[in-house]
Amino acid sequence: MGLRILEIGHFVAAPFCTRLLADLGADIIKLEPPDGDPVRQWGAHIDGKSVWWSVHGRNKRSVTLNLKTEKGRDLARSLATQCDAVVENFRPGQLAKLGLGDDELRRARPDLIIAHVSGYGQDGPYRDRAAFGVIGEAIGGLRHLTNHGPGTTGLPPVRVGVSIGDSIAGLYAAFGIVAALCRRYRSPGEAGLTLDVALTESVLSMMEGMLPEFGALNIVKQPTGGAIATAAPSNAYPTSDGAWILIAANSDRLFARLVALIDAPELLHSDFAGNRNRVHNATRLDGVISGWTRTMPAVELEQVLNAADIPNSKVFTVADIAQDPQFRERGMVREVADPAFGTVLHPGIVPHVVEAPGEVSWPGCELGAHNAEIFGDMLGLSPEAILQMREEGVIG
Amino acid sequence: MGLRILEIGHFVAAPFCTRLLADLGADIIKLEPPDGDPVRQWGAHIDGKSVWWSVHGRNKRSVTLNLKTEKGRDLARSLATQCDAVVENFRPGQLAKLGLGDDELRRARPDLIIAHVSGYGQDGPYRDRAAFGVIGEAIGGLRHLTNHGPGTTGLPPVRVGVSIGDSIAGLYAAFGIVAALCRRYRSPGEAGLTLDVALTESVLSMMEGMLPEFGALNIVKQPTGGAIATAAPSNAYPTSDGAWILIAANSDRLFARLVALIDAPELLHSDFAGNRNRVHNATRLDGVISGWTRTMPAVELEQVLNAADIPNSKVFTVADIAQDPQFRERGMVREVADPAFGTVLHPGIVPHVVEAPGEVSWPGCELGAHNAEIFGDMLGLSPEAILQMREEGVIG
Repeated sequence: MGLRILEIGHFVAAPFCTRLLADLGADIIKLEPPDGDPVRQWGAHIDGKSVWWSVHGRNKRSVTLNLKTEKGRDLARSLATQCDAVVENFRPGQLAKLGLGDDELRRARPDLIIAHVSGYGQDGPYRDRAAFGVIGEAIGGLRHLTNHGPGTTGLPPVRVGVSIGDSIAGLYAAFGIVAALCRRYRSPGEAGLTLDVALTESVLSMMEGMLPEFGALNIVKQPTGGAIATAAPSNAYPTSDGAWILIAANSDRLFARLVALIDAPELLHSDFAGNRNRVHNATRLDGVISGWTRTMPAVELEQVLNAADIPNSKVFTVADIAQDPQFRERGMVREVADPAFGTVLHPGIVPHVVEAPGEVSWPGCELGAHNAEIFGDMLGLSPEAILQMREEGVIG
Repeated sequence: MGLRILEIGHFVAAPFCTRLLADLGADIIKLEPPDGDPVRQWGAHIDGKSVWWSVHGRNKRSVTLNLKTEKGRDLARSLATQCDAVVENFRPGQLAKLGLGDDELRRARPDLIIAHVSGYGQDGPYRDRAAFGVIGEAIGGLRHLTNHGPGTTGLPPVRVGVSIGDSIAGLYAAFGIVAALCRRYRSPGEAGLTLDVALTESVLSMMEGMLPEFGALNIVKQPTGGAIATAAPSNAYPTSDGAWILIAANSDRLFARLVALIDAPELLHSDFAGNRNRVHNATRLDGVISGWTRTMPAVELEQVLNAADIPNSKVFTVADIAQDPQFRERGMVREVADPAFGTVLHPGIVPHVVEAPGEVSWPGCELGAHNAEIFGDMLGLSPEAILQMREEGVIG
């Protein structure tokens, strides 16, 4: 896509942003400290290497620089002038303290696009707070909703299970960078735009009608467990073999088919006639449906529901995902050769661009794998100069 | 941003995509059937009008066309030639059946960018399945993880509480459209790109190391409730006034501060020394912490934790969000004048572009509010011709 980006990032948000851009063909230079991005050590390992890194670092080039040295910072600035954009997710103001603030980065490259990703944003009273993903998700309103209805259990609202807030913030940053690049194509010579993406705000932007409904009607949106507040039946139901199956039979037509299947006369009662009544009596309704689903294993239940053309699906574990024919056929679960592990399962490239689907050209690489080519070819340093920098501790 | 988009969408995914683009300054023409996008009726109402629509439809222009008429389809094609991109989220193939397939749309505008958003994608064995958001989220792997650990409750895994899969797919589509536009700026005259965004795949792309860890090590990722599988203590804890408070004290330094606060000698036991031991004994640890948090209301607990500099936050409801000083100061909770309701609370514009922050120029408008200006000024139809089309049922 004719886009070169310097990533001065770590953990999830900024590196996820650049992974998405790399997947679409951008050239990503990931600048790492001499001991590397901590994600290289995260999650399950084989021979001391994180398998997640195979995905998180794919299609990127890695260079190491010690930004605590003056020469390291000089080289980082030089790299930035060769790039269209810089993405970073340190605490607000931290790069500026190192002499890598927006003004310094733009001195030699005024049209540089700069994306800052942080917990709360680059200004305001919370700017300096530590950015923990789980806390940001709670402030953005997501955590309150991932719970059973008030009074159902004494257990806490659940985490989504992945760092969803960081990933959404990273996706917003990727969107903002290409939007800023469009603007530069349209108005060449203009100063580069600055993006200020906050995790809390990225999450809040996904909260649908929650804010206007509170403002206009004082409605405080509450969690509804596995159900949908406005449609029934729609929930996850237990199977005899310990799985969960989603059934969405919340139209009159679909509900009638479900009633025919279950053969439970009590469902013909007027309490369950029409969506409004079904929502009102959803707990009782879900009880009857659960009693039925519990009599069959997931495979049988799926067959029965599919035969009746009732929308349903097992709640997929990764084992289901890995063998799913749709994901496989569309390249969304793919085997990628990785010198560290043999073969690794990767998710595919989203969005899928029909005419230019892209590819995983290489999995997450070794720390500093591209030092020679980038410091040599791109910055014109001689092999001797690179060696000396290594001895001086400028390169890791 | 010099971008005009025709949205032939409904419900959440495609309209959320265009809302994001509209927020950044794109001109969105939303084509609606004579009875309008169903979201105009969704959620809480005032005088028969959905307040969510105020946000979901903001900054867009609305025209009505009956695509069941030949003239309606002609006009839709004419509108498309005046646009840079078309976004749609009907069932795969449905627009093509109406003569609005990719080839027909591009006949007069070969560089048109087309974004299809669907449940499972435009091809493959599941292509024709009904696209229910909750089912797509389950297939993408999210639903399995939004649960308490295996064996904790008999309750189903929870829904995130909003249509998160649709919104993430919409955000991916917005990202893809601007990326395709960049490509067009760089290579003018090339044929327009086609985006094929699936809800299931958009969700799967957020699942971090789940797929590579399964492929390489056969690990089936399981839910962990309010906790994080790899760090402790980090959970939501109950307060005496029925709220939940997040505490992330999972470094040795932070944990020592928490122990000093709680004054519980049992926490000095070696079972809780170091993150590895704390994770192993997390249930017991969380029990002790809960016993302490339960003795205080949320306000007091926050003060105590803040004074000790331990990362924490109440789990925000929308009432907390609406009055939060950080969101207010950054314009992320803002009051927008809406002729239908007086004032409505809107979320702000993400990503925040420092030099061009954009604005909410108008809230979601009436159905067909821009028929006259778009059919007149843009397509050159006379007032008489528009009137006649209305009488013929071409315009709603």
